[in-house]
Amino acid sequence: MSAGTLYMLPSPLDAACAPGADTPSAVRECAHRLDYFLVENARSARATLKRLEHPRPLRELDIVELPPEHEGGLLRELLAPVASGRDAAVISDAGCPGVADPGALAARTAHGMGIPVMPLVGPSSILLGLMASGLNGQCFIFHGYLPVEDDARGKTLVELEKQSARLRQTQIFIETPYRNLRMFEAIRKHCRGTSLLCIASALTAPDQFIRTQAIAAWTPEQVERIDRRPTLFLLLA
Amino acid sequence: MSAGTLYMLPSPLDAACAPGADTPSAVRECAHRLDYFLVENARSARATLKRLEHPRPLRELDIVELPPEHEGGLLRELLAPVASGRDAAVISDAGCPGVADPGALAARTAHGMGIPVMPLVGPSSILLGLMASGLNGQCFIFHGYLPVEDDARGKTLVELEKQSARLRQTQIFIETPYRNLRMFEAIRKHCRGTSLLCIASALTAPDQFIRTQAIAAWTPEQVERIDRRPTLFLLLA
Repeated sequence: MSAGTLYMLPSPLDAACAPGADTPSAVRECAHRLDYFLVENARSARATLKRLEHPRPLRELDIVELPPEHEGGLLRELLAPVASGRDAAVISDAGCPGVADPGALAARTAHGMGIPVMPLVGPSSILLGLMASGLNGQCFIFHGYLPVEDDARGKTLVELEKQSARLRQTQIFIETPYRNLRMFEAIRKHCRGTSLLCIASALTAPDQFIRTQAIAAWTPEQVERIDRRPTLFLLLA
Repeated sequence: MSAGTLYMLPSPLDAACAPGADTPSAVRECAHRLDYFLVENARSARATLKRLEHPRPLRELDIVELPPEHEGGLLRELLAPVASGRDAAVISDAGCPGVADPGALAARTAHGMGIPVMPLVGPSSILLGLMASGLNGQCFIFHGYLPVEDDARGKTLVELEKQSARLRQTQIFIETPYRNLRMFEAIRKHCRGTSLLCIASALTAPDQFIRTQAIAAWTPEQVERIDRRPTLFLLLA
């Protein structure tokens, strides 16, 4: 008996984005054939499946939330039907599962069980932001969140800028949206005015905002646009 | 007079992949509206536009190759029509322009000229490989090519493995396809057998091969599948 496939199914970055703008038709059709989903959040996954116009009533689908990381052992149980031939998909709340989002442990467990893992094309804020930034895409690093505490964050920013200058490396990080303005102030305070900063905010949304310029060139009006909006910061010294 | 937009338009990773599998319909429609393209290679860009069924005869489109990096100043001239209101798109040979591919300098120059840069959803081997790898997607680094010379490559691999262990960071790199087997041998020689290695090869192609396992677990039959195929290596110590 051959194993099923574990698909990694991207979800929209912004609920207002038309599915035709971020989802290839074959990805949509693939989702339509599935009835078993391992998800970050059931409610959000149902919204994603509804948006893709899954042909079956959502209540007939098996939508199971991923266990917390420290209970990763439960994944073997959840993936047992896949090992026995049932296809399934991993869905995170926004963007690509497993990239700056839950889902990686499900994919890793699947590899360990001999289950093929199939990534599907879709929107990723990291990739879209990097493409549009014009910063170095030959060498880059994604850090996730930086420390929240002022001193530690300042030190980290200084360190990232040094590393960027030394290795010509684009430094990519995110922040909880309500702290975006504080993050910008920290960048202005701790990094050189001549370093390039790209801010990519509300990607794929109607109010998407992407701009790259020297840190010193940012105006308060520009910076205000990222307040409480999902934002990616990209720095190149 | 308002500026046009510079679109970053992905091209297929594999020519045999159906456009419906890697291109959202709105991205295709966006490409259809354009008649000015800044491209890595004219022949390959024409193939991409033909694949997307651009409605106009290709000879009527302005398809201009990007200048070499050291002549980046020429980009301002090529982008002048965009600053004056004409939309354009950047196309690289495979995958997302500006990410492990030419195009970043065009986007950066556009930002400097006040031209909005708009990234479009499409296939990226780095993103697809990372999604499917099950390795850490919260913190990762893309290095591009490692040194070719044996000693330097060995030292780099040892360094990357240490850094991966210290920071729980997925290390991502590529190799010229005909050197893939030598790269694998170097990884086996210089890294620990217990470190996890994902090999993601021929992504989106009919013979796509993605597998994550401890370095010591790789068999010669598995490794042979990546010979002369475009391949992404992902390492997590």
